[in-house]
Amino acid sequence: MHYGGSMEVSGNETICVVGLGYVGLPTAISFHRAGFTVIGVDVSEHIVKSLNNGLNHLVDTSATLDIPVKSPRWRVTNQFEEGVTKSDVILITVPTPVNEDNSPDLSFVRSASSSVLDNIDRSKKTVVVLESTVFPGVTRQILGGLCVEKGLLQGEQVVLAYCPERVNPGDVSREVNSVAQIVGCDDSETGEFLTELFGKITTESSTFVGSIEVAEASKMIENVQRDIDIALANELAIVLPLLGVDVEDVLSAAATKWNFHRHTPGIGVGGHCIPVDPYYYMAIAEEAGFPSLLSASARKINNSMPVKTADEILQLMGSRAHPKVLVLGYAYKAEVGDVRETPVRALTQHLNDSGCVVLVWDPLVKDDEFPIWVTGVSGPYDCDGLDAVVLATAHRQILEIDWGGVLETCNYPLIYDGRRVLDRDVFEEMGWKFTGVGAPNFFPND
Amino acid sequence: MHYGGSMEVSGNETICVVGLGYVGLPTAISFHRAGFTVIGVDVSEHIVKSLNNGLNHLVDTSATLDIPVKSPRWRVTNQFEEGVTKSDVILITVPTPVNEDNSPDLSFVRSASSSVLDNIDRSKKTVVVLESTVFPGVTRQILGGLCVEKGLLQGEQVVLAYCPERVNPGDVSREVNSVAQIVGCDDSETGEFLTELFGKITTESSTFVGSIEVAEASKMIENVQRDIDIALANELAIVLPLLGVDVEDVLSAAATKWNFHRHTPGIGVGGHCIPVDPYYYMAIAEEAGFPSLLSASARKINNSMPVKTADEILQLMGSRAHPKVLVLGYAYKAEVGDVRETPVRALTQHLNDSGCVVLVWDPLVKDDEFPIWVTGVSGPYDCDGLDAVVLATAHRQILEIDWGGVLETCNYPLIYDGRRVLDRDVFEEMGWKFTGVGAPNFFPND
Repeated sequence: MHYGGSMEVSGNETICVVGLGYVGLPTAISFHRAGFTVIGVDVSEHIVKSLNNGLNHLVDTSATLDIPVKSPRWRVTNQFEEGVTKSDVILITVPTPVNEDNSPDLSFVRSASSSVLDNIDRSKKTVVVLESTVFPGVTRQILGGLCVEKGLLQGEQVVLAYCPERVNPGDVSREVNSVAQIVGCDDSETGEFLTELFGKITTESSTFVGSIEVAEASKMIENVQRDIDIALANELAIVLPLLGVDVEDVLSAAATKWNFHRHTPGIGVGGHCIPVDPYYYMAIAEEAGFPSLLSASARKINNSMPVKTADEILQLMGSRAHPKVLVLGYAYKAEVGDVRETPVRALTQHLNDSGCVVLVWDPLVKDDEFPIWVTGVSGPYDCDGLDAVVLATAHRQILEIDWGGVLETCNYPLIYDGRRVLDRDVFEEMGWKFTGVGAPNFFPND
Repeated sequence: MHYGGSMEVSGNETICVVGLGYVGLPTAISFHRAGFTVIGVDVSEHIVKSLNNGLNHLVDTSATLDIPVKSPRWRVTNQFEEGVTKSDVILITVPTPVNEDNSPDLSFVRSASSSVLDNIDRSKKTVVVLESTVFPGVTRQILGGLCVEKGLLQGEQVVLAYCPERVNPGDVSREVNSVAQIVGCDDSETGEFLTELFGKITTESSTFVGSIEVAEASKMIENVQRDIDIALANELAIVLPLLGVDVEDVLSAAATKWNFHRHTPGIGVGGHCIPVDPYYYMAIAEEAGFPSLLSASARKINNSMPVKTADEILQLMGSRAHPKVLVLGYAYKAEVGDVRETPVRALTQHLNDSGCVVLVWDPLVKDDEFPIWVTGVSGPYDCDGLDAVVLATAHRQILEIDWGGVLETCNYPLIYDGRRVLDRDVFEEMGWKFTGVGAPNFFPND
């Protein structure tokens, strides 16, 4: 490494970011902004071309990223050699999805790591950091294993570390430069160096937490806990209405207690973290000999929400022939255009399978991202004869539509709040039949 | 009621508290302190006698309660008539335990409610408030049903309400007068009155949350969530050491993330709330047609901890004949003398069943509360030939013992931290073999 023996961050380090997606691109830009020389590597020619034309290929509205195309400290390429060989620190930020059977798919980690290690300059020490969500042991097994295979000396030519990404898509207050960073590394000197390095891009804390496995496990359990938290809100959203109680009233009452943490029930969880990471935990727990009870239950509940919601909507519409349903929002969460693992997919599929005509409007998602069983509409007022309107994603642009205008296009004025963000009283006053996830189905005007 | 038509709190109200246990007694004293006339009713002659002699019968060290025996506004009796007839507001704070099969035991609520309603002054309006933890519907079914049976007119002679207790035993910062109160009542005027009334005894908020069932459900889910939170910490304490990682390191790393909530794993949960209330939820969820997945998993994990811990300790001691184990703490949690549902019971039973001699020291629990299979010792240094020391309850008096002195009484210097409150480095430096819940069993000095 260029920093010589001291291992303090000089600011002259070259940082290579491998994988320029939702995490990698903002990370690369943050390091560039902090004054470092940054080389971005992505295997997608489309992404490299787009970025080299100054165009951000991400669809999140929150990702208002300026691509510093003209900076001498910025370069984007699909050649690993160009990115890796000259760099001091390599950050690998590739996806870690699950396979069809929900088993962890580590193929991107494996292939990116292999390409990185093939291009390491063996005459100096390079720090290789995995940022992708994995289970404890992956960095050591995959990257460590590849080092052995390729005859790279750990500690001399390569030092491995794990620093998880923690961004919250769609939340401008939780981006790469505003989340606390943690660093896991077996070599404490490198660990402290990376802690200082990540401290340069975030306004929050940067902490050296010990071994690689501690950091890997930390990231994994963060989303395991969140999946369980949301699953409890969803389980209560199923049980409490059966007792005549609205889950939202109960959660608000409970939230007055000092140690209660409130979560909002909904039509399901989506994205590349919450519905995915728990399967990494479940896989490793099972392999270790103690299959997770809690994550298995949480996954079961959260996975069941889209179809349960669709069934409830079908029941509320009664025996109409080929009812027409307008679904507002298709992205997996508010203020993102990302449709990965979106629960709206299963919801609309079940509605369609049950004979509904399903129309969808999402101002942040292009129509070609919609599945074949839905029809994209150009606006929320461009329908007629609607038998139900479903709020599926709480984008600001959806919350701010003229609900009276939508009501005029309805044959049956049913509004189903799939995110519990609408005010029942306001909607009932307008003439809507209002219900939603976790609400007892009681229409006072009937 | 004496307050006439206005329903504002005058300060001249008489308040009757039925059941003078961990909740009722501090509640009664708080209302007395706030200037109200208070009549305490308890069916136990022992409790009434003790209180009338100015003696607090509770064993919690945190309950430093002065009994105002000489006050003209204070009276304790076992006669319902004396307490109920003259009172404006009756608070029922009786236990709601579970039966042997974990089904809800509502017999105390039923019998106390019946005695209260038998003694209501029918010439005025009396507010009857249940504070015990129940599932949604219990107040209406049991108290409402008894009103019908006894020919009492609801709204005129009796107004029912539900205001859960939320004290945290052993935590001086979360007592009756320092927790947020909530009020559920179908009559909004009475609801607002009670909200004001409870506001007189707490420094925190007092909120009218709507119907009785909303307040009942709120209290129930608070402890359901806590049981699940702790269960996840415990599940991770089982899984992560199998991967060579200490759960405490991982929880501390995860806690640097803004939305992670940290809980501490341990040898199990106890007391009258966490291991009990979830069964109320499970019972009503099943009755409603959607058996809880999450609470069932959480109960399974938390219930398994004492025996799992005992097995781990047995394994660590190896093949010693009749090993001698000193267990420090028997109460279910730190700073209380309460042994209800204490996990130390099952832990010591399993150790004893497996051939151990089990010694117990708990400075807050009297020896006659110990089960027959353990021997109480008068102090932590009064043993010899110990093969293991187990920290089971983190009382301050236990944490502050001379651990070097205890070490001298050891045959095998094994310390098992069942609450993860001890510093591994300090203990290893003293010569202990240190491990605990969620720690990999690795003794660096071996």
